Amino acid sequence: MAAAESLFSQLVPVQAKCQGCEERRINVRVNIELQSTTNPIHRKDLVVRLTDDSDPFFLYNLVISEEDFQSLKLQQSLLVDFSAFPQRFIDLLQHCIQEQNKDIPRFLLHLVSSGPNLDHTPAFLNVVETNPFKHLTHLSLKFLPGNDAEIKKFLATCLKCIKEEKLLLEQKLRKTDEDLTRQLNYAQQ
Amino acid sequence: MAAAESLFSQLVPVQAKCQGCEERRINVRVNIELQSTTNPIHRKDLVVRLTDDSDPFFLYNLVISEEDFQSLKLQQSLLVDFSAFPQRFIDLLQHCIQEQNKDIPRFLLHLVSSGPNLDHTPAFLNVVETNPFKHLTHLSLKFLPGNDAEIKKFLATCLKCIKEEKLLLEQKLRKTDEDLTRQLNYAQQ
Repeated sequence: MAAAESLFSQLVPVQAKCQGCEERRINVRVNIELQSTTNPIHRKDLVVRLTDDSDPFFLYNLVISEEDFQSLKLQQSLLVDFSAFPQRFIDLLQHCIQEQNKDIPRFLLHLVSSGPNLDHTPAFLNVVETNPFKHLTHLSLKFLPGNDAEIKKFLATCLKCIKEEKLLLEQKLRKTDEDLTRQLNYAQQ
Repeated sequence: MAAAESLFSQLVPVQAKCQGCEERRINVRVNIELQSTTNPIHRKDLVVRLTDDSDPFFLYNLVISEEDFQSLKLQQSLLVDFSAFPQRFIDLLQHCIQEQNKDIPRFLLHLVSSGPNLDHTPAFLNVVETNPFKHLTHLSLKFLPGNDAEIKKFLATCLKCIKEEKLLLEQKLRKTDEDLTRQLNYAQQ
């Protein structure tokens, strides 16, 4: 048995940096899910996915298990446990969204790749607060770029969703047209 | 400079057969394009793609260059040249479409894979005429299954198209709603 609970799916402004290329601002869709498996053992994974609505090949994945979280907690001096972590992460993302239109945003997301472009190397997503004294990194998460098979699977899911949305729109258009035409005929009699 | 001329894109009924699995009838979208390149040398390729609207991971490709065609012509005793071939192939597909609702269709397309399923091995698309005497293969083309990178690229293209179609539908729905509501208000005054 596996179940996925969607916790967050929003566009978040990100400063993207990679080696030798100019820093640029992109809107990244951050998707956070809690995946539970009960068989063979009970386990929970926090799954974070970064995508770009305008670039179908942009895909970064991060899976944090409860064990992974213990090292992350130690390494980054976190004071919350695994169950409280997702909401704290979402709070930080919300700060970044709220600050996005300010001249000097206090909270900013950085996506930093060590490679020459954002495609084929791991990238760090850093939540950075800028105060008058310094840049303060609240969290730094390492994402892996999706491979062809993962991107293929992701695109198939997108295609399925958008096909359903399109079908609903077609039905709504037909219904709107019929309803209003009927009312119009009636009113014109 | 590369240009692609679309020659055919339709759903065609196909009998799919693979080793050890039951024969089944699927509707395959056959897409035929003529791709021209002028640089560095002038060349034309006939590109045939098989996809399944209900299975995003189903993708078979065939590229026939003018040279390839010479061996195909020899091997299968064809009497037409490269420039006439696409239309003859389309004519055969049209025969299969026309015959699809008959009890005993005279023309049938077979997609035959030597592997245990239709996914990872080359497959032959055969145009077979059944007359009282025998099965007569008019054409047999060898397709290669798309790899993850090709499927990824194909799905991204589908997604782009369907997003555009969805946008147009949304605009049309808004316009229909506005137009008819305006007319209705006017008629009701």
